[in-house]
Amino acid sequence: MKKLLIIGGVAGGASAAARARRLNEEVEIIMFERGEYISFANCGLPYHIGGDIASRDALVLQTPQSFKARFNVDVRLFNEVVAIDKDAKTVTVKNLQSGEQYVESYDALVLSPGAAPVTPPIPGLQTPRTFSLRNLPDMDRIIASIKDNQPKHATVVGGGFIGLEMVEALRELGIAVTLLELSPQVMAPVDLEMANMVHQEIVDHGVDLRLNTGLAAVEQVEAGLQLSLNNGDSLNTELLISAIGVKPETKLAVDAGLAIGALGGIAVDDRMRTSDPAIYAVGDAIEEVDLITGEKALIPLAGPANRQGRIAANNIFGADEAYSKTQGTAICRVFSLAVASTGMNEKRLSRAGMAFEKIYVHPASHASYFPGAHPVSLKLLFNPVDGKILGAQAVGRDGIDKRIDVLAVAIRAGMTVFDLQQMELTYAPPFGSAKDVLNQAGFVAGNLINGEIRICHSDELEAPSADQVLLDVRNPGELAKLGTIGEAINIPVDQLRDRLDELPKDKEILIFCQVGLRGNVAYRMLANHGFRAKNLTGGFKTYQAVKAAF
Amino acid sequence: MKKLLIIGGVAGGASAAARARRLNEEVEIIMFERGEYISFANCGLPYHIGGDIASRDALVLQTPQSFKARFNVDVRLFNEVVAIDKDAKTVTVKNLQSGEQYVESYDALVLSPGAAPVTPPIPGLQTPRTFSLRNLPDMDRIIASIKDNQPKHATVVGGGFIGLEMVEALRELGIAVTLLELSPQVMAPVDLEMANMVHQEIVDHGVDLRLNTGLAAVEQVEAGLQLSLNNGDSLNTELLISAIGVKPETKLAVDAGLAIGALGGIAVDDRMRTSDPAIYAVGDAIEEVDLITGEKALIPLAGPANRQGRIAANNIFGADEAYSKTQGTAICRVFSLAVASTGMNEKRLSRAGMAFEKIYVHPASHASYFPGAHPVSLKLLFNPVDGKILGAQAVGRDGIDKRIDVLAVAIRAGMTVFDLQQMELTYAPPFGSAKDVLNQAGFVAGNLINGEIRICHSDELEAPSADQVLLDVRNPGELAKLGTIGEAINIPVDQLRDRLDELPKDKEILIFCQVGLRGNVAYRMLANHGFRAKNLTGGFKTYQAVKAAF
Ligand SMILES: Cc1cc2nc3c(=O)[nH]c(=O)nc-3n(C[C@H](O)[C@H](O)[C@H](O)COP(=O)(O)OP(=O)(O)OC[C@H]3O[C@@H](n4cnc5c(N)ncnc54)[C@H](O)[C@@H]3O)c2cc1C
Ligand SMILES: Cc1cc2nc3c(=O)[nH]c(=O)nc-3n(C[C@H](O)[C@H](O)[C@H](O)COP(=O)(O)OP(=O)(O)OC[C@H]3O[C@@H](n4cnc5c(N)ncnc54)[C@H](O)[C@@H]3O)c2cc1C
Ligand SMILES: CC(C)(COP(=O)(O)OP(=O)(O)OC[C@H]1O[C@@H](n2cnc3c(N)ncnc32)[C@H](O)[C@@H]1OP(=O)(O)O)[C@@H](O)C(=O)NCCC(=O)NCCS
Ligand SMILES: CC(C)(COP(=O)(O)OP(=O)(O)OC[C@H]1O[C@@H](n2cnc3c(N)ncnc32)[C@H](O)[C@@H]1OP(=O)(O)O)[C@@H](O)C(=O)NCCC(=O)NCCS
Repeated sequence: MKKLLIIGGVAGGASAAARARRLNEEVEIIMFERGEYISFANCGLPYHIGGDIASRDALVLQTPQSFKARFNVDVRLFNEVVAIDKDAKTVTVKNLQSGEQYVESYDALVLSPGAAPVTPPIPGLQTPRTFSLRNLPDMDRIIASIKDNQPKHATVVGGGFIGLEMVEALRELGIAVTLLELSPQVMAPVDLEMANMVHQEIVDHGVDLRLNTGLAAVEQVEAGLQLSLNNGDSLNTELLISAIGVKPETKLAVDAGLAIGALGGIAVDDRMRTSDPAIYAVGDAIEEVDLITGEKALIPLAGPANRQGRIAANNIFGADEAYSKTQGTAICRVFSLAVASTGMNEKRLSRAGMAFEKIYVHPASHASYFPGAHPVSLKLLFNPVDGKILGAQAVGRDGIDKRIDVLAVAIRAGMTVFDLQQMELTYAPPFGSAKDVLNQAGFVAGNLINGEIRICHSDELEAPSADQVLLDVRNPGELAKLGTIGEAINIPVDQLRDRLDELPKDKEILIFCQVGLRGNVAYRMLANHGFRAKNLTGGFKTYQAVKAAF
Repeated sequence: MKKLLIIGGVAGGASAAARARRLNEEVEIIMFERGEYISFANCGLPYHIGGDIASRDALVLQTPQSFKARFNVDVRLFNEVVAIDKDAKTVTVKNLQSGEQYVESYDALVLSPGAAPVTPPIPGLQTPRTFSLRNLPDMDRIIASIKDNQPKHATVVGGGFIGLEMVEALRELGIAVTLLELSPQVMAPVDLEMANMVHQEIVDHGVDLRLNTGLAAVEQVEAGLQLSLNNGDSLNTELLISAIGVKPETKLAVDAGLAIGALGGIAVDDRMRTSDPAIYAVGDAIEEVDLITGEKALIPLAGPANRQGRIAANNIFGADEAYSKTQGTAICRVFSLAVASTGMNEKRLSRAGMAFEKIYVHPASHASYFPGAHPVSLKLLFNPVDGKILGAQAVGRDGIDKRIDVLAVAIRAGMTVFDLQQMELTYAPPFGSAKDVLNQAGFVAGNLINGEIRICHSDELEAPSADQVLLDVRNPGELAKLGTIGEAINIPVDQLRDRLDELPKDKEILIFCQVGLRGNVAYRMLANHGFRAKNLTGGFKTYQAVKAAF
C-alpha cells in the first residue's frame, strides 16, 4: 500500500484519511475535494442560518493546512475527480480553478462523494431565489439572499429533517414560512400519528403547514416568486428552499462500472468494499443492510459516514472489520420538540408483512414532581409472540434522545420488551423516574403479550360496533377541558369499582383514559369482574394524535 | 389466596399492593404503614428543602383514600407491624395512635420496610438540631429548624447521594455548609479521580469540604452545636444532618426467624421469596445479587424497590418471574454536575481480583459547535482480553444520564467495547455527535485491546524512570494557561512529524495532551516511526482529576 486516494473531504472522506494516517505513516494520501472546504459540519448549516450557531468559523473543523500538519494528507480543494479507471488503478482529476486535468494512480481508493439534493423536474424551479442546502457555499447564498432581499415570507419544500431545520431557522429570523410536503406527514422515519405531534408544534409556531401538497411550478414575479401548487392553489413567496431529499452521488461509480444497488447507491460489502477490490465506498453514496429486514437501505446520516470511513481505512490496512448492519437511528429538533426513531416503523413493518404489535406510553421525562418534566410520547413496535423489539419512535421536549439511544442498543442486542421491564437505569428526580419511560413501555407491552390486557386502537373507538360501548375513565374536569370520544360513558376510574352495575356485561367495553395508565387499572378491574374489555393504548392523547388533521 | 398483607407503604410496598390488585380483585389487601404517609417521594425530600420542588403536596403521590378508591387496599397509617408468626401466618400490629395491638392473618405477606439511616455511636449526637432524612416528618423537622433558628452554618455528615443533595439544598438556601466525609471521597460508587471532579464542584460552590474527616463528638453550646472532629479540629455549627448511609430494616424479619444475608439484608431468592415460602421481601431491606460478580449486594434505590414490588405481586399470583441481577446503576446531581455509574468500579474490580483495563475520554455532550455542549468525562472499565464492558462512570453537566443508561443496557446485554464502536445513536447537533461519546470510548478501548496503542496512567507520569521522557503535545498557550507535568518536552502534535529528531529513540516516550485525542494521533505517529511510546489516557484533564487533593 503506497498510495491511497480519497474522493470527498467531509464526513466519510476526512474520517478515512485521518484514520489511514494513524494506521500508517508511509502511505501517500491524497484527498480530493471539489468544493472549497473539507471537514465541515453540514449538520450545523441550518443552525448558523437561524442564528443558534453564531460563528461561521465554528462550522469548519479542519482546513487543508491543519489536515496536512496533523495527518500529512495532501488535500486538494477545487479538485474534482471526473473519472476512475479501475483497471489502470488511476483517477482523472479536474482542477476546477485552472481547468486542467491530470491523472493520479492509486493502490487503494475510497469514495465518499456524498449525496446530492434531489432536484425535482419542476418548471421554473431554478431561480436566483431558489436554494438547496448541502454545503457552506449553499448556506452563504441563502444568508446573502435573506440579507439582500429581506424576505417576509419563505417557502420550504420537503418535510425531512433538513426541511424542518430550515423551517425553524427561518422562523427564528422572524420570516413567515410555508412548508410544502407532498406526503401526509413530515419526518418519514416516524409514523403519521407521531408526526402529527410534530405537525402541531409546527403549526403552533406560526408555520403555514401544507401536507399532501406538492410544488408544481415556479414563476419569477416582481415581488419574488409565484408558486403553483399541485392542488391548484398558488402562493407568493420571496425565498424558496428545496429540501425534498438526497440521492447518492454515483456518477463516478457508474461510469467506472462499479456495481450499483437496487436503491441507486453504490453497492458495497460489509467491509465497505465495492465490486472492485481496490475501491472502497462509504457514507451517503452507498447502500447499507437493514439490521431487521436484511434488506438494502439508504442511510444518509453523519454517524454512519464517519464510522464507515474509519472501517474502510482499517480494512485497507489489513484489518478484517465488518460494518454492522444499520438500524437507521435518527433525531431532529423541531422548535422545542425532539422527534426520534430507531429500527422499523409501522409503515415498513406493514409493507414487509411482518407480524408486530404496537403500544404507546406518555410518561414524564423525569420524576413528575420535579420541575421541568415533560411527557415522552413513545411508540414501541415489537414481535407479538416473543416480544422482540422491532422499532421505536419518540416525541417530546426532553429525554427523547436518551430513550431512543437506549432502545437502539436494546434492538441491537436483540432484547425483548421483558428486558425493558428489568432495565436498571439512572434515577434521581432531575434525570428519570423510579419506573422509567422504558420500564413502563416494557410493562405495557409485556402485559399485552402475556394476555393480561387486550388493547384497541383509535380506529376501533371511532366506529364501535353495536356489540361495543365506550368507557371514559377520566375525571369530568378532564372531559370538559379536553373532550371525549363518541358516546362514551364516563365513570372515573376511582369510582368504577362501585359503579360496575352501570356497565353492560353483554358488551365489549372499550376503555380509555388520558394516556392509558388509568385505563389499564380499569381494564384489570373489569376483566377480573368478568367483563369483556379492551384498553385504548396511549389513551386520548394518542387518539388525538391519530385523529389530528393538518 | 384470600388475604395479602403488606408491611411498608412506600416504594416497594405500594407498588406490590397496586399490582396485586390489578392481578386480582378478590383478595383482601391490607397495607400497614407505621408512618403518616404512604406513596411519597423520598427522593424529592432534599429538593423541597432546597426549594426546587416548591409544593410539599407534590411529594405525596397517593393517600389512603386515593389508594382505597383506586385499588381497594385497606391502608392503615400509624400501624406498625411488631411481630410475624410465620407458622401461624399472622402478624401482630400496633396502632401507634391508640397503643392497641391486634393480630391479622395472611396467606401471603410482603415485607417492604425499607432501610433506616445509620446512626453512628457518636457521643452527644442526639440533639434538637441533629437530623437524618428519610421521610416527610424528617423533612418537616429540618425545614422547621431552619425557619426557627435561621442557621448561618450547617454541617452534613456523609458524602453519599443524600448527603450531597442536602449540601446542595442548604447552599441553595444561602447557608454556609461544611461536609464531613470519613473516606477520601464522596459518592462511593465512583472511583476517586471521578469523585475529585465532584469535589471541585462542591468546593467551587463555597462548601467547606473535609474529606478523611469523621465526626467524633457533638456538644450543645449556646450558639448551636460544637462538633469535635476525629482529626482534633472542632467546628461550630447550627444544624447537623447525619447522612452516613442506611441499613436494612430487618428487626421484624430477624425476630420472625427469616434468613438474613451476610450483608445484613433479608435473604430472598430471585422470585423475591424469603426463607419462608409465604413471605416475600423487596426494596431497601433485602440483599440482591450482583450481575457481574454474582455476589450479594445492598442496592437501596427506588427503581429496584418499585420493580421488585411488582415482581413479588406477580409471583404471589402465580407467575414465576425472576428479578434480574443488579448492576447498581445510580446518579446524583451535585450543583450543576451530574455523577453517575453502572456496573463495577475500579475499587471493586481490584478487590475482587478481576482483570480489567480502564480508559478515559472527555468528548462533548453534543456537537461541540452547537451551543451548550459540555464535556462528558467517562471512565470505562472492561475486560482486557475480550473487551466485555464491566463498568462505567461519568461526570459532567449534560448527557451523563444518557451515556450511563446506554452503558447499563450494554452491560446487561454482555456487550463489548467493539459493540460501542458500532453503536448507532441519535445524532443531530443539539443532541449528540456524529461520533458519540460512546463510540469514541469504544474506539479508544478497542485500540488498546487490539494493541494499536499502549497507554499509561497518571502515576507513571509522576515518576518516570530514567528510561522514559514525557512529551506534552499540546500548544504552548495551553501549557501556559493550564500547566504541564514534570519536565515534559513540549512539541505540539501538529509540528511533531517535522520535529521527530528532537525525541530520543532509546527511551520510552510518555505522551500526553489535554484529553488523550491528540496524544492518540501523536502515539500512532511515533509508533509508526519506530519510537516506543505510551499515551496518557484521559490526558491532562484526567491527570488533574487524579492528582487533585481536597
Ligand atoms: C443541512 C444538512 C443537515 C444535516 N444534518 C444532519 C444531522 O443532524 N444528523 C446526521 O446524522 N446527518 C445530518 N446530515 C447528513 C450528513 O451531513 C451526511 O450524512 C454526511 O455528511 C455524509 O458524509 P459523506 O462523506 O458521505 O458526504 P459529504 O459529507 O457530503 O461529503 C462528500 C464530499 O465529496 C465531495 N465530492 C463529491 N464528488 C466529488 C468528486 N467527484 N470529486 C471530489 N469531491 C467530490 C463533495 O463536494 C462533498 O464535499 C445533514 C446534511 C445536511 C446537508
Ligand atoms: C432523601 C432520600 C433521597 C433519595 N433519593 C433517591 C434517588 O434519587 N434515587 C433513588 O433511586 N433512590 C433514592 N432514594 C432511595 C429510595 O427512596 C428508596 O430506595 C426506596 O424508597 C425504598 O423503597 P422501600 O419500599 O424499600 O422502602 P421505603 O420507601 O423506605 O418504605 C418503607 C416504609 O415501610 C415503613 N415501615 C417500616 N417498618 C414497618 C413496620 N414494621 N410496620 C409498618 N410500616 C413499616 C416505613 O415507615 C416506610 O415508610 C432516596 C431516599 C431518601 C431518603
Ligand atoms: C404510586 C404507586 C403506588 C404506583 O404504583 P403503580 O400503579 O404500580 O405504578 P404506576 O403509576 O407507575 O403505573 C404503572 C402501571 O401502569 C401501567 N402503565 C403505565 N403507563 C401506561 C400506559 N400509557 N398505558 C397502559 N398502562 C400503563 C404499567 O403497565 C403498570 O401496570 P402493571 O404493573 O399492571 O403492568 C407507587 O409507585 C408508589 O408508591 N410510588 C411512590 C413511592 C416511591 O416510589 N418512592 C421512591 C421514589 S421517589
Ligand atoms: C474532523 C475529522 C477529520 C476527524 O477525524 P478523526 O480524527 O478520525 O476523528 P476525531 O477527531 O473524532 O477523533 C477520533 C479519534 O480519536 C481517538 N480519541 C478520541 N478521544 C480520545 C481520547 N480521549 N483519548 C485517546 N484517543 C481518543 C479515537 O480513538 C479516534 O482515533 P482512532 O480512529 O485512531 O481510534 C472528521 O470527523 C471530519 O471531517 N468531521 C467533520 C465532517 C462531518 O463529520 N460532518 C458531518 C457531521 S456535522
